[in-house]
Amino acid sequence: MTTWFGTAGIRGTYLDDVTPDLATLVGKAITAYLKARKIALGGDARTTTPLLKHAAAVGAMYIGSDVIDLGLIPMPVLPWWINRGDSDGGIYITASHNPPTDNGIKVFDGEGREFTRSMEEELESLMKKGSFKPASWREVGTLTRQDPLREYIDELVSFDMPENPRISPRVLVDTANGPSALVTPHVLRSLGADVITFNSAVDGYFPGRTPEPRPDVLEPYLPSARELGVHVFLAHDGDGDRLAVLDPLKGFIKQDHLIALLAKEKLSQRKGTIIVSIDVGNAVRDVVHDMGGKLEVVRLGKIHEGLITNPSALMAAEPWKLIDPSWGPWIDGMHQASLIVKMIIERGKKIGELMNTVPNYPQARYSIKVPRGIRDAVYEALVNKVKQLDKGKGKVQTIDGYRLDLPDKTWVLVRRSGTEPKVRIYAEAKKPSSLENLVNELIKEAKKAVSPEDRDRLIIEGKIIY
Amino acid sequence: MTTWFGTAGIRGTYLDDVTPDLATLVGKAITAYLKARKIALGGDARTTTPLLKHAAAVGAMYIGSDVIDLGLIPMPVLPWWINRGDSDGGIYITASHNPPTDNGIKVFDGEGREFTRSMEEELESLMKKGSFKPASWREVGTLTRQDPLREYIDELVSFDMPENPRISPRVLVDTANGPSALVTPHVLRSLGADVITFNSAVDGYFPGRTPEPRPDVLEPYLPSARELGVHVFLAHDGDGDRLAVLDPLKGFIKQDHLIALLAKEKLSQRKGTIIVSIDVGNAVRDVVHDMGGKLEVVRLGKIHEGLITNPSALMAAEPWKLIDPSWGPWIDGMHQASLIVKMIIERGKKIGELMNTVPNYPQARYSIKVPRGIRDAVYEALVNKVKQLDKGKGKVQTIDGYRLDLPDKTWVLVRRSGTEPKVRIYAEAKKPSSLENLVNELIKEAKKAVSPEDRDRLIIEGKIIY
Amino acid sequence: MTTWFGTAGIRGTYLDDVTPDLATLVGKAITAYLKARKIALGGDARTTTPLLKHAAAVGAMYIGSDVIDLGLIPMPVLPWWINRGDSDGGIYITASHNPPTDNGIKVFDGEGREFTRSMEEELESLMKKGSFKPASWREVGTLTRQDPLREYIDELVSFDMPENPRISPRVLVDTANGPSALVTPHVLRSLGADVITFNSAVDGYFPGRTPEPRPDVLEPYLPSARELGVHVFLAHDGDGDRLAVLDPLKGFIKQDHLIALLAKEKLSQRKGTIIVSIDVGNAVRDVVHDMGGKLEVVRLGKIHEGLITNPSALMAAEPWKLIDPSWGPWIDGMHQASLIVKMIIERGKKIGELMNTVPNYPQARYSIKVPRGIRDAVYEALVNKVKQLDKGKGKVQTIDGYRLDLPDKTWVLVRRSGTEPKVRIYAEAKKPSSLENLVNELIKEAKKAVSPEDRDRLIIEGKIIY
Amino acid sequence: MTTWFGTAGIRGTYLDDVTPDLATLVGKAITAYLKARKIALGGDARTTTPLLKHAAAVGAMYIGSDVIDLGLIPMPVLPWWINRGDSDGGIYITASHNPPTDNGIKVFDGEGREFTRSMEEELESLMKKGSFKPASWREVGTLTRQDPLREYIDELVSFDMPENPRISPRVLVDTANGPSALVTPHVLRSLGADVITFNSAVDGYFPGRTPEPRPDVLEPYLPSARELGVHVFLAHDGDGDRLAVLDPLKGFIKQDHLIALLAKEKLSQRKGTIIVSIDVGNAVRDVVHDMGGKLEVVRLGKIHEGLITNPSALMAAEPWKLIDPSWGPWIDGMHQASLIVKMIIERGKKIGELMNTVPNYPQARYSIKVPRGIRDAVYEALVNKVKQLDKGKGKVQTIDGYRLDLPDKTWVLVRRSGTEPKVRIYAEAKKPSSLENLVNELIKEAKKAVSPEDRDRLIIEGKIIY
Repeated sequence: MTTWFGTAGIRGTYLDDVTPDLATLVGKAITAYLKARKIALGGDARTTTPLLKHAAAVGAMYIGSDVIDLGLIPMPVLPWWINRGDSDGGIYITASHNPPTDNGIKVFDGEGREFTRSMEEELESLMKKGSFKPASWREVGTLTRQDPLREYIDELVSFDMPENPRISPRVLVDTANGPSALVTPHVLRSLGADVITFNSAVDGYFPGRTPEPRPDVLEPYLPSARELGVHVFLAHDGDGDRLAVLDPLKGFIKQDHLIALLAKEKLSQRKGTIIVSIDVGNAVRDVVHDMGGKLEVVRLGKIHEGLITNPSALMAAEPWKLIDPSWGPWIDGMHQASLIVKMIIERGKKIGELMNTVPNYPQARYSIKVPRGIRDAVYEALVNKVKQLDKGKGKVQTIDGYRLDLPDKTWVLVRRSGTEPKVRIYAEAKKPSSLENLVNELIKEAKKAVSPEDRDRLIIEGKIIY
Repeated sequence: MTTWFGTAGIRGTYLDDVTPDLATLVGKAITAYLKARKIALGGDARTTTPLLKHAAAVGAMYIGSDVIDLGLIPMPVLPWWINRGDSDGGIYITASHNPPTDNGIKVFDGEGREFTRSMEEELESLMKKGSFKPASWREVGTLTRQDPLREYIDELVSFDMPENPRISPRVLVDTANGPSALVTPHVLRSLGADVITFNSAVDGYFPGRTPEPRPDVLEPYLPSARELGVHVFLAHDGDGDRLAVLDPLKGFIKQDHLIALLAKEKLSQRKGTIIVSIDVGNAVRDVVHDMGGKLEVVRLGKIHEGLITNPSALMAAEPWKLIDPSWGPWIDGMHQASLIVKMIIERGKKIGELMNTVPNYPQARYSIKVPRGIRDAVYEALVNKVKQLDKGKGKVQTIDGYRLDLPDKTWVLVRRSGTEPKVRIYAEAKKPSSLENLVNELIKEAKKAVSPEDRDRLIIEGKIIY
Repeated sequence: MTTWFGTAGIRGTYLDDVTPDLATLVGKAITAYLKARKIALGGDARTTTPLLKHAAAVGAMYIGSDVIDLGLIPMPVLPWWINRGDSDGGIYITASHNPPTDNGIKVFDGEGREFTRSMEEELESLMKKGSFKPASWREVGTLTRQDPLREYIDELVSFDMPENPRISPRVLVDTANGPSALVTPHVLRSLGADVITFNSAVDGYFPGRTPEPRPDVLEPYLPSARELGVHVFLAHDGDGDRLAVLDPLKGFIKQDHLIALLAKEKLSQRKGTIIVSIDVGNAVRDVVHDMGGKLEVVRLGKIHEGLITNPSALMAAEPWKLIDPSWGPWIDGMHQASLIVKMIIERGKKIGELMNTVPNYPQARYSIKVPRGIRDAVYEALVNKVKQLDKGKGKVQTIDGYRLDLPDKTWVLVRRSGTEPKVRIYAEAKKPSSLENLVNELIKEAKKAVSPEDRDRLIIEGKIIY
Repeated sequence: MTTWFGTAGIRGTYLDDVTPDLATLVGKAITAYLKARKIALGGDARTTTPLLKHAAAVGAMYIGSDVIDLGLIPMPVLPWWINRGDSDGGIYITASHNPPTDNGIKVFDGEGREFTRSMEEELESLMKKGSFKPASWREVGTLTRQDPLREYIDELVSFDMPENPRISPRVLVDTANGPSALVTPHVLRSLGADVITFNSAVDGYFPGRTPEPRPDVLEPYLPSARELGVHVFLAHDGDGDRLAVLDPLKGFIKQDHLIALLAKEKLSQRKGTIIVSIDVGNAVRDVVHDMGGKLEVVRLGKIHEGLITNPSALMAAEPWKLIDPSWGPWIDGMHQASLIVKMIIERGKKIGELMNTVPNYPQARYSIKVPRGIRDAVYEALVNKVKQLDKGKGKVQTIDGYRLDLPDKTWVLVRRSGTEPKVRIYAEAKKPSSLENLVNELIKEAKKAVSPEDRDRLIIEGKIIY
């Protein structure tokens, strides 16, 4: 078990969970762990990021690594820069889509890949031991600045340049006051779009909107999106690894639906493997099956690990996040935005029309928040219930929770959350009514499994999304 | 008559009107004219600005002035920087609210004031002569970079910090993809506002909207402004000297009305003189009269010259533009934005409620575009018509066109445009119907003054704004 | 008693005495002590300086101060910058003339003055307590870079520009591979000298020579200085606060002699007070007396404190170090170099000729290194011996050790070193032979005061310099 | 014939020969000629370099190329940077070893090679035509800064790191106040030397010494070089492409002798071709013969062209200049300095001992300056005289002047200077007395060939160097 690293690096409230001392400790440990001579460093626009960044730099320099400070950059720019240069690793300071009170630390290896779980565990064991050999005065590290944005933009534009463009679409981009404001609008404009930007003043207070690109946060912008006649409305989180896509007419596009669109695009170019997280449903499966591709399923938050075992895969995706190995082995919401705009330009279609080319299934995403100590009981009850549904005809996957796929394409996944005292239920069924029944049965089962007083304390949240 | 300088410096289409050679010539001439040892240089985000800026720098260095390149900054930051330091003058590259195909050059003296007309004429005569003494190898100028934005922001925040704040208003700011994106949102957030930004990715293609903050350009953003519940919607032009203000409920606020609000605010702090351009109407006059102030009227585009003869004036304004001498002798749309948000915070009121505290009159703003050669005839006819309205009871001003103010507060101004083959008509009257009649009569008169074939070629544009 | 601060701030071997943790602690403490909102930061070229500098920055930011990193600068540039701006204090990382294995920390107040002893003590008591209130995420400090060198050079050149120059002297400057290489040669060239530079590649390994500008270190350069026909040979220490001056013909100029020259220059412009440390001898006294000035004597290492009680003094000096209050209240070896070259240019004389215009006395500077535990006994014996010399006709000063001045201008000072287990003897006499006798008698007395075995362990070093 | 380009690019007096307009013209022409999208730009420390550099940038941007300004760098850093990146060409502003009143322009192709003669001619024909298509506002170039020095240093250190070091030599480096001060001392220190630097304050006035590293300029530094006990004394010119090497005991090392040392070193690693200019003599020939190598002879100033026809050559050298193709196809005095220090470290020998390992021949280098109009007559007379010496047994080369090599290793070369009204004589012979006779005969012949009055106006300079 890790103490500091969660499903997306270290993250938490500044001062309570994440401090300069912790950043310095990470700086020391990653230098020792990677025997690094050069560490790349970057961070988002949060107010506490410069402090934490320099604290991490102090740790790395102390152990003997030079530090290249790439300054205020979107998260994906750091692994891109590592991947093409001679750095031995990287540190990025961000709390991604958390509020401005929070911050966090992500670590990368010399190829620009996020650390795997086992690497995080080894790093933590060094951090716990806490004894590092300081570099002598001759070997102590330096700190140099570099500005990689221009080159990243040029390279991404060249990589995603549309062939045979049909239209100059109008694109609305909301960059959540994050550093993707310095990249995505310029890239999309260079691809040929007319780009309207919302919340593109870079500001760590996130004065415009919370950095999580949720439907409720983005919907107030839809009236003007419609008025302005945009072909698509794209929204980043605080550090630019995530992307939300909205249809100005219909609103928020379901992540499963979007992954299906991207998978179809990739498979239409070349046959191969599509990696997805365990909670991804039938839309993607249909597309992969129809296009003659292969599907690989991995734990949630670990699509980058899926790529290590399937290095030739066409893409790896989970809700909000895309890795396109032809571009590089990191999650990159800016490349994802480019890919979508490239499709719009090449097809001459609005996002709504593109979404119609791939199947869409209603999907249930629920969570049951449970009192301390009874989560496993609830989970086991749900698993047992799911097993009853099987009747020997289903396919079971247990890599991350318990997932059952039935022959009629009904499926259900129950799993324990990695970060909260919750059990999660994901499901799809042929008809909305069957889906509703399925979820209700499972919730009933969960309630049955606990004492009456605990029953009253279960908090059930979620909905069926279309 | 000037060849290159119009009402707002040099401006025109890149390559046709504005070239690197012209910028170099300006750089040489201003150095020679000011006997400058240090010239401050800045520019907006246009694609041609870096080229023209360096061409101007080459001119100045060649004659022997050091050049301090302040980089990509809003226009008002240049005079602010000159005013507080030891530069002998300044050059700013911008075409303000013109489209991206255009560019231009503004010049400033060692106090940060825009050149007066007579200085521009002297500069042009040097440019026409074209023979400058180059500096020897020992005296040739250097080029240094400075980044003034952080300090400008800090100083403006400190200058405009609200006293006894009542609310944290929600403010929408549209910065026209210009460099004011780097300043205004941060300033307003520091004053205590929640700031939502539109078109704040800095981009010289102006991909979001045309940099002119006109009503038709900004109105598509109103539905979301309402949905987001903002207290005010502010919009800059491409270089940050201008400001448009919108009420999310009622839309665009008339410039006369806005100037009246600002004049009232200034006069409530201290008695003194308010300078306005000749086209400003009764709302401001009422306010100045009621508050016991004094009104000074100057030519359009020359409020900075008005300040030279009235150095202790409280403010100088013309539609879109404000000089606040307590802040400094330059037009500054970012300070103007701060002043308005400060009022909102201190009063605890939305912009609509603030506007209700000052009078508002419907105003006619028309232009008659005329074929070459007959403009003077049309103009004379209109002046004669206005003279007929006088009947000896009105007050006539001829500093810029012909303006008649009647005792019942009806007024009309006819003038020839400084930049286009147009005659302009501005007017106010007690009742909208009287105003309409007045305008119609004048237009009829204009038509009568020309031959039938010319009559068909008159292009009449304008409307009555409320 | 202070734990960390010695006679010139914190100084010692990197890792043993001076660590990133200590720098962070100083950063926190100075921010809390000065209630600072802005701390200026700089450092020399040592390999460990960037690390310690950023560690100090992390401390200051954590408590809530913005940090302005002035980068690699000579030490005097930091107080100059603080003095003219709005910083609340400053931190400079250097071990001055110590070897590259060492480093240290100097602290300055908001006027650019080094901390006084009592301020250092208060700072240390905060450091010992060690509990500081961290700033919230809203108040945490930022880190900004500024490059002050160009402006410092311009201002110093303008301040020291010779009037009525007679010659363009040839000047040799050795900048000890320190950052004064970026300043002194340019300043002296701008004043009108032909400047030859030695050891001006900035390099924290000090590959050229040890950064202490001692006679034995500098003398190998004299043959070429003579060959090149230079008017003066100037040498800095590692951070540019100290200056050694050499006559190419006669070699190293005694510090007392040099202070006398500078005092004479200052007093020839205006009558006033000259502050010197207690070890300064008759040359300065003669000059001050002859020119009608007033002499103030202070403890060694505390001339900046002397200026607090005598703010209108003309200058304050101790061997190697000059504060010229008309320039600013900090030790500045680069201004000192300028002053000397200005004199050479204005008088048209070589340094040797200038030195001949002020008196010069042979001076004895000896140290007795003693075994632990007996220093006070040796010191007391020496004081007693000095008292015997008095015979009621001398003048005694005890502000720092025991100094006796006899009517025939013979004087002797005995004091305990502030940093080493040594007793120091300084003396002058009318004739070299009397001086030798005086020193021998004192050494004999010291030997008598200790046991025979301790006597063998006394290490006596020193010489009579002319 | 070229109008502007001489044997080393464009060079001449600032304002008379080299102006901002010329630099802009070169910027336009190279962009058009190379169809460049990215031009790298650099320059030396001359006062006129920033002006000329930005003038060149304006030209390139105007035609549509982005410009990457590498700032103040030694000349070889520009081709190194081009060679490893994606620039399409480069411009470097320098007058190399000329006085500070001069400046010049060098141009490079997309591989980092200096333009060949024929490319220079094509470029000039574009310059003469002078009509270039300006880029539209969408295509106009940008200007970006990059700092390549740190990476260049790291790469050169890694390339030249000594194997099995025997000593830490003391090395004296004089960098002529040029930008090589920012590189060579750091590189040599990193290789393991104790580096003393002279004239390493970067200053375009060249206050220390004229930038030409001639014997008479450098010899005043020898006394201190001896006093300091250095193993070798290295001296650059103003931009770091040239290197002079001095033995502290014996003084200036003849360029032929040095090339022989380097050729031996290269041939000891691998057999192959050594390219030299036509004026190189027997020392190199002996070495190449003894080591089993192959010698290729090219025109003076064109060793880079020799490499195009012999791309696999081991090295190309002419007096002062070395291209080492294993490092890159450009002249690099800093790499040359590293190579020599590497040899000293690996062999554990002083430069004098290393020089003893290769043959050394006395060499005559004379020039006859002639009145306008008679140069060809003098030249023909000398060629005829040389032909008489032949007697059918010699080997004749006419690639650049007329060179005769006799079987006894006596050789003589007469050629017309490429830049001055001079005829040059180079020769070697078995015995110094024979060499003297040979030169005297040739001079007599030259005098005979002209009228008596012209005879008196011949200026004969030169000497026999050992």
